[in-house]
Amino acid sequence: MSYRFGGIADENSMSNVDDELSRRGEVLPRSYRLFYRKPVYVRSARGSTITEQDGTVLIDAYNNVPVVGHSNPVVAERVCAQLKEHNTHTRYVNPNVADYAERLLATFDKPLDRVIFSSTGSESNDLATQVARVVTGNRGIIVTNHAYHGTTTALHALSPSLSNFWITPDTGLIDVPKGEKTDAEFAEAFLASLDAEIERLTQNGSGVAALLVDSLMTSDGIFPFPLGLLREAGERVQRAGGLWIADEVQSGFGRVGTHWWGYQRHGGQPDLVVLGKPMGNGLPIAALVGSHHILDAYGDQFRYFNTFGGNPVCLAAAEAVLDEIEDRALLNNAVLLGDTLNRMITEVIEASGLPFRVRSAGLMLGLDTGSMKAAGLLANLMRERGVLVGTSGVDGEVLKVRPPLVIDENGIERIASALAESLRDKECEQHMRAALSNEGAQ
Amino acid sequence: MSYRFGGIADENSMSNVDDELSRRGEVLPRSYRLFYRKPVYVRSARGSTITEQDGTVLIDAYNNVPVVGHSNPVVAERVCAQLKEHNTHTRYVNPNVADYAERLLATFDKPLDRVIFSSTGSESNDLATQVARVVTGNRGIIVTNHAYHGTTTALHALSPSLSNFWITPDTGLIDVPKGEKTDAEFAEAFLASLDAEIERLTQNGSGVAALLVDSLMTSDGIFPFPLGLLREAGERVQRAGGLWIADEVQSGFGRVGTHWWGYQRHGGQPDLVVLGKPMGNGLPIAALVGSHHILDAYGDQFRYFNTFGGNPVCLAAAEAVLDEIEDRALLNNAVLLGDTLNRMITEVIEASGLPFRVRSAGLMLGLDTGSMKAAGLLANLMRERGVLVGTSGVDGEVLKVRPPLVIDENGIERIASALAESLRDKECEQHMRAALSNEGAQ
Repeated sequence: MSYRFGGIADENSMSNVDDELSRRGEVLPRSYRLFYRKPVYVRSARGSTITEQDGTVLIDAYNNVPVVGHSNPVVAERVCAQLKEHNTHTRYVNPNVADYAERLLATFDKPLDRVIFSSTGSESNDLATQVARVVTGNRGIIVTNHAYHGTTTALHALSPSLSNFWITPDTGLIDVPKGEKTDAEFAEAFLASLDAEIERLTQNGSGVAALLVDSLMTSDGIFPFPLGLLREAGERVQRAGGLWIADEVQSGFGRVGTHWWGYQRHGGQPDLVVLGKPMGNGLPIAALVGSHHILDAYGDQFRYFNTFGGNPVCLAAAEAVLDEIEDRALLNNAVLLGDTLNRMITEVIEASGLPFRVRSAGLMLGLDTGSMKAAGLLANLMRERGVLVGTSGVDGEVLKVRPPLVIDENGIERIASALAESLRDKECEQHMRAALSNEGAQ
Repeated sequence: MSYRFGGIADENSMSNVDDELSRRGEVLPRSYRLFYRKPVYVRSARGSTITEQDGTVLIDAYNNVPVVGHSNPVVAERVCAQLKEHNTHTRYVNPNVADYAERLLATFDKPLDRVIFSSTGSESNDLATQVARVVTGNRGIIVTNHAYHGTTTALHALSPSLSNFWITPDTGLIDVPKGEKTDAEFAEAFLASLDAEIERLTQNGSGVAALLVDSLMTSDGIFPFPLGLLREAGERVQRAGGLWIADEVQSGFGRVGTHWWGYQRHGGQPDLVVLGKPMGNGLPIAALVGSHHILDAYGDQFRYFNTFGGNPVCLAAAEAVLDEIEDRALLNNAVLLGDTLNRMITEVIEASGLPFRVRSAGLMLGLDTGSMKAAGLLANLMRERGVLVGTSGVDGEVLKVRPPLVIDENGIERIASALAESLRDKECEQHMRAALSNEGAQ
């Protein structure tokens, strides 16, 4: 049985988790992969740390779901209280639905004045594509060429990072430029590819229903710049008759620091915005935000009911998240510590002399190594030094650093020092530089 | 602004909830509908009762999600404890995943030995169709002609009860027979329609990937009989090269009383089983169960990761649900009180002289009035007498009675007496009998 994920896991060194892996292998199919060659065996988690069964305390620089910290006590308290009162659904009147919706919508610009709740980013992204297709009358949806938007059949067709199996002629794919580029070159190539896909979808009869884009292009390798690019892309799609759907599952809820939502860094006005992962700090809740013009145009034709969407328990978690983000000034934390993270990682890379590039916005940072082997090895070496990071990018070549927003300066220092130590590791010396020169020579 | 749902809601008599409805209308789009012409305004809920803001205590004979009772203290305690420990995901090792999976799989017959977790029945049904299409190489999926299987794009195409908008030539539709029929006539007509759809999908090149069927045909109007019908249907589809997917979102977790899963009443062996709503008693958790042969054949080609699927907090709820079902012998309760419910409702109908038909299995009962107006009016009148029920069926003509499994004999008596009183109501006399004779005359 193999437990692989991208370039960062293999089946060696499982140590004392072997028994658990064996049990797991008897009940879960092989679609389940674990992270890291030395899997993480969780005993407890607090704030921005995860403690393993053997007592090792890890810095979590991977998980964006626990945005206000693992085991957040305010979230736990509110959820517990609500669980003991009631947990029904939106076909009955529960004032907490409007309470939360009002607060949430206040973080958006005026035209975005309605919200539809669901349980997951997948459900809300899928619904966004239904709305776009119904209100525009078109079929084509454009995504970036290594996008991830969810696991439903329709989203599988819009998530080339999963596979090309479900891609159809209705799927438009923007080539996200790779390699060393200026902001202007990046934008020019990106928009040229978008224009070509608009043209192709128009020609093949699909028409353009939407641009569905993660506002940080997280799975493409994290591309926060140039500012204004997504506005320009969104407006070109709007001129072609489509909607701009901002997928904020990764970039939302203060991750970018300067704004609540990643698209707001770029300016412009998306037609639909999708929220997910961090919304309930781990309780499954997600949402689709849009204007009443668009959502009622859909709602007048179709009812939409989601059993768990907007249930009082998950809303209690979501409300606690808003409180914590505001009370603890976590957007400000994302700005300040995001700057610190960028500076420290940049210093480590400059000191190493490696040709890696750092790209970040707030507390989402991509370290582009240009090599899957390098990024995968670094993620494993950092994990073995007590810091959890992930990878992204077409070839898994980008180290993805994405801690809970409650991380402190000590946590940031641990991330930077784990990276520095990993770069000095013998395995890194032997394998990574060889890998880099081999891949470079191909 | 209109708040309608099927035949059981209108905008009159909103009394003291008007303010809340107005706030709601400012933040939720018109896809949101409330139940009943006098909407339910929830203050608290316990066991099988819901208490309104004004103190009225309602008997809940609608909600199957709180299967072990509203605000179940065992569920609340376990969830609270887990929220304070950790809540990560299945890419790390958490023993509770295997703990729960082992217990869950013990309720299934042997070939079904693997489980994939998600957050909602929609996600798991959508995944089931992906698995079926990948492993069979076929496209066609057959459902009943008023089925509901979920809200994703792919499931919208398999949920004619929502709309026909997304139905494609790959969708096969079984005509579920209506009107007074013997079991043999029902089965014959059902299977003839299935055979015709198998033939059509084979001819049009779709092929048969699956039969996706709710084991109680809940949204078609609740058809628990004849026993063996779904086995025969499943086996015909299996012989045609497709999979039998049992949608147990409605019929699972002991609802039918005699078995854990609705399909087990019919015998035979589904290839995939989908679990949802009641799994976490209101915490969003769902699952796809199958054999390792089928799920690994999918998993070897596609990774599947679901952010919230199998998270420790939702699993804690799910484990408490299994404990409560077992410790309180709720399958037995469903058998005994299901019999009482069927007997009491049958007596009320016989005393009324109305030509209504009662169909039930365990604690899922359908009262087929043959008339949308009759069923909608009865649901509203019963609500006004303190008992919550729903409607189903192609024309919303069936009263759907589906209480939490913890309901007691007093609750069942309340349901029956509310029905008897509603049938004697002046509005019922005036409108319903007129409606019945009008519809009968058409």
